[in-house]
Amino acid sequence: MVRIGSAPADFRSAAELLDRFNREFDCPSPGPGFLATRVAELAREDAVVLLAADRESDLGIAVVRFRRAIWSQGLEAYLAELYVVPESRRRGLGGELMEAVLAAARERGCDTVDLGTDEGDHDAHRLYERFGFSNLVDADAAEPERMLFYEREL
Amino acid sequence: MVRIGSAPADFRSAAELLDRFNREFDCPSPGPGFLATRVAELAREDAVVLLAADRESDLGIAVVRFRRAIWSQGLEAYLAELYVVPESRRRGLGGELMEAVLAAARERGCDTVDLGTDEGDHDAHRLYERFGFSNLVDADAAEPERMLFYEREL
Repeated sequence: MVRIGSAPADFRSAAELLDRFNREFDCPSPGPGFLATRVAELAREDAVVLLAADRESDLGIAVVRFRRAIWSQGLEAYLAELYVVPESRRRGLGGELMEAVLAAARERGCDTVDLGTDEGDHDAHRLYERFGFSNLVDADAAEPERMLFYEREL
Repeated sequence: MVRIGSAPADFRSAAELLDRFNREFDCPSPGPGFLATRVAELAREDAVVLLAADRESDLGIAVVRFRRAIWSQGLEAYLAELYVVPESRRRGLGGELMEAVLAAARERGCDTVDLGTDEGDHDAHRLYERFGFSNLVDADAAEPERMLFYEREL
């Protein structure tokens, strides 16, 4: 079951999941205290926080950010974070989260959803492709090109 | 010379360049009229519009969007658009725009700048890499992985 985070307890739970996410992948985390405050702020602004749970606890999270499109009157959605705890993977929670991501983006009138992912994360690629995402600039071209994500820190 | 677009004439010029951009790459464009209004709106909200010019006319554009980071108190910058007209390429305008993109991001206290690009656009990759961007998740790994950009329309 996936719900939209709206209460302080949801944001604390979201913060715990985001903190686990970064610790699992050896990325620095500002800690659940900071994250709970931040996620609550962003949820009042341009983000939707989605939580996937079984009957007992929250096991997965997606964070979607919205920005106004340049090329149309609509919005663009950016899937900033997607995480399911290791012991609950391969049970369909990622798919439930992706359904909710697309529903939230459609409800807000988005034209597109985009995201960045790592080349080696084949489970993620399969999930995104199953939900209609493509990494190819023009899938019908004779030699389709991929779209790449670049980043730099400041 | 690169300036930050702030006047109605700047936004009309930005709109002409964005329209040329999409027409050059056979992407649909809503036309310069729509774009001038939209770019002016976004520049009042979360975008900086940068224009590169010689003494006579505007020849290149960058559009940077800002969003609040999840993982820190700072902002994240997203380089949404970068374009130089074909007849003015290889004269350093892309580099001038990138300098201005980084300056604008630093001035606003951004932690990161990210962008999506096509695998075959080697000129763009060289430009981004010259300005410190990386496409690799962990450049020090034995077999570095690239970061991929996925998208779907709604």
